[in-house]
Amino acid sequence: MGRVVFVGAGPGSADLITLRGMRRLGDADVVLADALTDPALRAYAPQALWVDVGKRGYGASVDQSTIDALLVEHARKAAVVVRLKGGDPSLFGRLEEELLACAAAGIACEVVPGVTAALAAAADAQRPLTRRGVGRSVSLATAMTRERALKALRTADTEVYYMAGKQLAALSQRLLAAGWPPSTPVSLLSDAGWPGALHSDLLLADLAAGAAGHTGHPTVVTVGAGAARLLPTASSPSVPEVAPGRALAIDPRL
Amino acid sequence: MGRVVFVGAGPGSADLITLRGMRRLGDADVVLADALTDPALRAYAPQALWVDVGKRGYGASVDQSTIDALLVEHARKAAVVVRLKGGDPSLFGRLEEELLACAAAGIACEVVPGVTAALAAAADAQRPLTRRGVGRSVSLATAMTRERALKALRTADTEVYYMAGKQLAALSQRLLAAGWPPSTPVSLLSDAGWPGALHSDLLLADLAAGAAGHTGHPTVVTVGAGAARLLPTASSPSVPEVAPGRALAIDPRL
Repeated sequence: MGRVVFVGAGPGSADLITLRGMRRLGDADVVLADALTDPALRAYAPQALWVDVGKRGYGASVDQSTIDALLVEHARKAAVVVRLKGGDPSLFGRLEEELLACAAAGIACEVVPGVTAALAAAADAQRPLTRRGVGRSVSLATAMTRERALKALRTADTEVYYMAGKQLAALSQRLLAAGWPPSTPVSLLSDAGWPGALHSDLLLADLAAGAAGHTGHPTVVTVGAGAARLLPTASSPSVPEVAPGRALAIDPRL
Repeated sequence: MGRVVFVGAGPGSADLITLRGMRRLGDADVVLADALTDPALRAYAPQALWVDVGKRGYGASVDQSTIDALLVEHARKAAVVVRLKGGDPSLFGRLEEELLACAAAGIACEVVPGVTAALAAAADAQRPLTRRGVGRSVSLATAMTRERALKALRTADTEVYYMAGKQLAALSQRLLAAGWPPSTPVSLLSDAGWPGALHSDLLLADLAAGAAGHTGHPTVVTVGAGAARLLPTASSPSVPEVAPGRALAIDPRL
C-alpha cells in the first residue's frame, strides 16, 4: 500500500512550487495533475507516470469521484502518488473529498502547502493585502458557488474573489449591494505568478468595464484596503501605474 | 542603484520556500532576514551578507523605520538585496511600509510570494480550510491589533487567527460574543510547517483550556467549518485523532 502526497503547485509558473513539493515530485511513482499546473513541473518527476486529470476550477472535465477512485487505485499499486494541485490544496481544491477517499481506503496522506492565487496576485501587483491601520483582515472566497449562485459580502477590510473573471459585472453589483462604496479600489490581476501577468486598477463602479483585457485569463479580484495604490499621487518604478479600465502587462521580475 | 526582492520564506522549515525565492537568495548580495525564518535558508545564499533584523511578529526588536532605512541603504550599495520575511510578504508583513520606503528612494522592487501560516497549519492538520457546501469563505486576521486590542468576529465560514497563542482565553470570549456557538470546532496548530508541529482539536467552549501544550510556540487558531474533523466517527491513519485539550506532536511527513 502506497501513500498519497497532496502538493500545492502554486498558481503560476513552475518556480512557485515549494522545495518540499519539488522533492516529493522527485519521489513520485505516479503524479495526478490538475490542468492548471505548469507542464514544466514534469521536469521534477521524469521518472513518474503522469496522469492528467484535467481539473480546471469549477469547470472540471474529470468528475471528482473519478479522481478519488484514481487516487486510491494508484496508491494501491505504487509507493508514492503525488496529487498535484494548482495553488494551495487546502483552499478551493476539493481536498476534503480526496482525503476522505484515501482515509476510507486506509491510505496514509501528507499535504504540502502551496502559494495561493490571492498571494501571488498581491505580489505581482505589489499591493499588500494587509495595510497599517486600515487593512487588518482578509477574506478569501470564490465568487461562484457550486450551485452557480454569485455571492459577495462586505465582511473584511480586504476581500479577494477567485474565479470571478467571467462575471465581473454581476460581482460589482453584488459588492455594491453589500455596502461597498462605488469608489472602493479594485485590483484585477490575471495569470498571477506567471511572467506577463495582467494588472488593472479600477474603482468598484467601473468593474464591469474593466473586464476587457482580462477575458479568457484566470483572474483574481481584490477589493478594498488591499487593492489601494500605495502612492496615490507620486509615481514609482516599483508600483506600475495603470489607467483605469486598461490592463497592463507586468513583468513580476522587474 | 540596486533592487530589492521581498521573498516569502514560508512559515516553517527551509523547504517551504518557493524555488523562485530560493533562486533570488542565490542572486543576493545582501539578505535582511526576519528572526522567524529558518537559519537553514542561509545555505541558499552563502555568498551574501546576512543581516538579522530580528523582527518577530508584533514583538519587533528592530524598529520598522530602522528596517526601512537599512533596506534603502543596502540597495544603494548592492545590486540585489533580498528582504526575507516569514510566511508571505503581503499578509501581516508590514510590506506596505517597506515598499513605500523603496519607492521614495527610487528603488525597483519585486515581491516573491510565500506559503502563509494558515495554509501550512491546514496542511499539517489535514483540515482543508474550504469544505463542500459548508465552507466557502475563509477569513485571515491577527487576533491582536497594533493598539493591542483583541478583535474577533463571525464573518466567514472559516476564520483563521494569527499570533493568538498568548491570549486564547480572551479570544474564545470574543468569538462567543461574536455569535459562534460554544460547540464550534477549533483547531490549534503550533509550529506550522515544521517537523514536530503540535495539533489540538477543541470546541470553542474549551479553547482557554487548550492553551496548555501550545505555550511558547507560534500558534494558528482555525475556527469554524475548516476546523472540523473530516470523519467525526471513524478513525483514519491520515487524520490524527487528538483528545480535546491535549496537544499531539504530528509528523507532517507521515
